[in-house]
Amino acid sequence: MKNLLLASTSTLFGSSYLEYLLPKLKSHFKNCKTVLFIPYARPSGISYDEYTQKTASVFAKINIVIKGIHQYENPAQAIQNAEGIFTGGGNTFLLVKQLYHEKIMTTLKETLEKGTPYLGTSAGSNIAGLSMQTTNDMPIVYPPSFKTLGLIPFNLNVHFIDADSQSTHMGESRETRINEFHHFNNFPVLGLKEGSWLEIKDGKIILKGKLSAKLFQKNRIPVEIKPNSELSFIQ
Amino acid sequence: MKNLLLASTSTLFGSSYLEYLLPKLKSHFKNCKTVLFIPYARPSGISYDEYTQKTASVFAKINIVIKGIHQYENPAQAIQNAEGIFTGGGNTFLLVKQLYHEKIMTTLKETLEKGTPYLGTSAGSNIAGLSMQTTNDMPIVYPPSFKTLGLIPFNLNVHFIDADSQSTHMGESRETRINEFHHFNNFPVLGLKEGSWLEIKDGKIILKGKLSAKLFQKNRIPVEIKPNSELSFIQ
Repeated sequence: MKNLLLASTSTLFGSSYLEYLLPKLKSHFKNCKTVLFIPYARPSGISYDEYTQKTASVFAKINIVIKGIHQYENPAQAIQNAEGIFTGGGNTFLLVKQLYHEKIMTTLKETLEKGTPYLGTSAGSNIAGLSMQTTNDMPIVYPPSFKTLGLIPFNLNVHFIDADSQSTHMGESRETRINEFHHFNNFPVLGLKEGSWLEIKDGKIILKGKLSAKLFQKNRIPVEIKPNSELSFIQ
Repeated sequence: MKNLLLASTSTLFGSSYLEYLLPKLKSHFKNCKTVLFIPYARPSGISYDEYTQKTASVFAKINIVIKGIHQYENPAQAIQNAEGIFTGGGNTFLLVKQLYHEKIMTTLKETLEKGTPYLGTSAGSNIAGLSMQTTNDMPIVYPPSFKTLGLIPFNLNVHFIDADSQSTHMGESRETRINEFHHFNNFPVLGLKEGSWLEIKDGKIILKGKLSAKLFQKNRIPVEIKPNSELSFIQ
């Protein structure tokens, strides 16, 4: 049975890295002495080592040791043996390219389907969807495919934000972009605002955090989803 | 000798489609009775026909007939025979995928290098760069390559906007994204604000419009570029 936390962002404005999630992580990873960290998304281009150290210093507060997947000779084995797994945010193209390069996309999927507790933030949550095609990131590298883990039967748009009605900028809003996505793809997209996360546990998908989420389905009017809603109806 | 106008946007806030560019287009396409329109980027998913009609109604004001490339049996020949060419904005992934699908990326490059006057707006300007990797668009379809026309020796970031220092949103700014791009790619990126365009003519690249542009080079501090600057120094 899957046991996943998929957060829109790692960091809230005015708060430190993972701070708002820490109480939740303590219970989520309660049976883990060690959590395997996947730093491939490299936010602002920081190195695997730097990113892993930054993450380790936060997890130390809840007495969990963080090990970077890049420190293992056999990353597939590291995933299979992990007590818990966390994929951090950054650039989704970079993350997906590296998961394919290391040939661990399928291993990661199979391992998480068996119930290893998982945390994703931002790009690390994107990859739980059917594809990375609703990422907000820049295509700075070319991955061999846009297909991702498919641990949930829809896609996420993380850092979701409603269009600013006061803006004079003519670039597309999130909603316009997701609408364009639905001209060429059929599966639903959940816009997950900063401070929201999905809890996938005991066969249920629950929206957590204080804010609503926005559900986009092809040829339908978008729907506001209230916190604590059960989302298994999304197909 | 190349003869290109590469605009950040087709439309300014409070103004209609192509309105601010129209006087410029009259002189740019002065020797054209007909301009070939490439509607592949399909903004908001509109059809090729709709997009072509919308564009034709504006060009009619300067007595130019617009023909959609999708109306030709042989799109490569349509490009080679065109008096002028305009690629409209929309989704860059969609545009690039279709250019490769129709096998006309090289034909378009060679034709524009010979001097056929060209207008690009937004996605249609992106493709003039070395790659589409600094687009802001969502990867709604998977193109066979991110490589584009390379008519200028750098990339563009269109609809460029400086980071909003008042924002509490934690998604990456344009500058952060371009910085991430430069961790994995070497060529420069020009952030082109809405209302700005590049004029490439007589072997020169000139920044036009009232606003500055921002030049990002790997391992260097970004530089503000003033309107009417000559940009051939960017390599």
